[in-house]
Amino acid sequence: MSRILVDGHGGDHAPGIVVEALAAIHAEYADAANKPTLGIVGQTEILLPALQQAGIADVVQIVPASETIGMSESPAMALRRKKDSSIHVGARQVRDGEWDALVSAGNTGALMAISKFILKTIPGVDRPAIASMLPAEGKSGKTLLLDAGANVDSSSEHLTQFAIMGSCYMEAAEGIQSPRVGVLNIGSEDIKGTDVVKMASASISDLDLNFIGNVEGTDLFLDNVDVVVCDGFVGNVALKTMEGVAHFIIANLKREFTGSLSARLGMLLAQNALRKLKTRIDPSEYNGAPLLGLNGIVVKSHGSADALGFSRSIQVAHREVESNLKSRIVESMNQWMEQ
Amino acid sequence: MSRILVDGHGGDHAPGIVVEALAAIHAEYADAANKPTLGIVGQTEILLPALQQAGIADVVQIVPASETIGMSESPAMALRRKKDSSIHVGARQVRDGEWDALVSAGNTGALMAISKFILKTIPGVDRPAIASMLPAEGKSGKTLLLDAGANVDSSSEHLTQFAIMGSCYMEAAEGIQSPRVGVLNIGSEDIKGTDVVKMASASISDLDLNFIGNVEGTDLFLDNVDVVVCDGFVGNVALKTMEGVAHFIIANLKREFTGSLSARLGMLLAQNALRKLKTRIDPSEYNGAPLLGLNGIVVKSHGSADALGFSRSIQVAHREVESNLKSRIVESMNQWMEQ
Repeated sequence: MSRILVDGHGGDHAPGIVVEALAAIHAEYADAANKPTLGIVGQTEILLPALQQAGIADVVQIVPASETIGMSESPAMALRRKKDSSIHVGARQVRDGEWDALVSAGNTGALMAISKFILKTIPGVDRPAIASMLPAEGKSGKTLLLDAGANVDSSSEHLTQFAIMGSCYMEAAEGIQSPRVGVLNIGSEDIKGTDVVKMASASISDLDLNFIGNVEGTDLFLDNVDVVVCDGFVGNVALKTMEGVAHFIIANLKREFTGSLSARLGMLLAQNALRKLKTRIDPSEYNGAPLLGLNGIVVKSHGSADALGFSRSIQVAHREVESNLKSRIVESMNQWMEQ
Repeated sequence: MSRILVDGHGGDHAPGIVVEALAAIHAEYADAANKPTLGIVGQTEILLPALQQAGIADVVQIVPASETIGMSESPAMALRRKKDSSIHVGARQVRDGEWDALVSAGNTGALMAISKFILKTIPGVDRPAIASMLPAEGKSGKTLLLDAGANVDSSSEHLTQFAIMGSCYMEAAEGIQSPRVGVLNIGSEDIKGTDVVKMASASISDLDLNFIGNVEGTDLFLDNVDVVVCDGFVGNVALKTMEGVAHFIIANLKREFTGSLSARLGMLLAQNALRKLKTRIDPSEYNGAPLLGLNGIVVKSHGSADALGFSRSIQVAHREVESNLKSRIVESMNQWMEQ
């Protein structure tokens, strides 16, 4: 049974949406055999009334932490100066085995720096990666992209480690048999790209993975690949470009659909279709980016996530715990190091 | 008056859509004072019947070239071995002043390599860049992204040159007064990103440009910036990610809208709105990527462009000629080198 601790103070809408998400998860898993135990870390005087108001004060345990980290605070300063922040306390609780996972919508850099400092990395992992889930065609409907921004100037060794961890994740947490792994490049031919991606391709093709070679930005949303590895600078640009295009198209769709009477009528008739479309591409549905490679489970929620989005992050953590993801990554990294 | 030569053999649908685009441009500028003179380079025995069928054999001049370059041929081999290819002949015609610009939907690498070899670069430009236009909010409705894939491992000096050229382009060819120039990064703070982007920011901020600092992937589609510079690997990933998301959303939109009777009725009522949306985000409307920094005007059309898309590329070339873009870049590069 998984024990999930959430950060009561991270993100743009904390603790409101965090508590709302906890209530949703509590209701959703009410009769489930694998119901997670839920906790929230932060300032009791703020969190207790919120839990009481949501009617879940008796089922969600509060872990006290006196400090909070701002969204734009320097990660290095937050790491050194705020030892009683919700992230510090949460990561220590996971390290000490009190809780199985920490979920936070807080400052990404601080979450990564503090988690890395307290939990350390799995042997063989030089740099943990942020793994982001993207919507895609195909049966799974998902592609995992990593690194999505934790590291810049990744080496081919780093990309190789990302490939191992990403493959473990999709197999364990998403149940995809021998996930297809690709390297993000600017063409499918072997001669394309930087030396780093060429060397990474060579090195990943030696592993016991279902490696399919180079993929391009267009492949991310098709049924061509399950795990895409790239440098964190490139991955972050791809992710934010995706967000930007999706917002742009949806904003224009809304504008056009409210522009005339017939368009408004059309929208009414098509509202089921539009709702399905929204579910398909809604960033909230794909929210919850695991920080892979840490010696403990940490999941990052988007800072602007709503309650649905935050609850998805809790489910990501829950699946990571239930599927023994950490042990699987430890095992795969050991195999790699012994090669 | 501009003289535009188009490659009769480049792209997935040549010469069909190329000839169709020429006919469209001929019709569109029929009574215009600035009507471009049109030519097509390639195999007469193929192109003449096509022009005749389209009824434009008397207004479009054929420049003979006996060879063609395949879309997946090695640029280096094409450069050395196919001296009578449509791209070689076209670039030589531009170099020799017979024509003002070459437009091709052919092999991007070969077009860049051959153009660079024959036309050379403008003094001060180390590497020409591919500049791609993206749809965006705001009055201009456009953002220029460069480099979109001509160069990998760009240095901060290269990014600085891209900033100068991109700013010249948006001012001259698009008529945007003091375009806002940004560096693509993974956060807006100065401490973010690689050393190359930090150094590029420092160097661009010393120029006489409207430099706004770091921008992110989401900014590309907002009214926040007009010219975004980045390494070609990063730019290509951003561009193809954009294409991938747009296709994914539109495919899902179509699927949902044809899924039920009420959705189909809704689509009928909203068809004007959907048509406007399509025009707004249609890649054809934004087609035509100038290769900036060459000592001559060359425009790359997407290989899979339709006739509308190819005609937009011809218009890009036409605007570059009419606005004296090359002289403006020469002048700006000279100012920079004298600093």
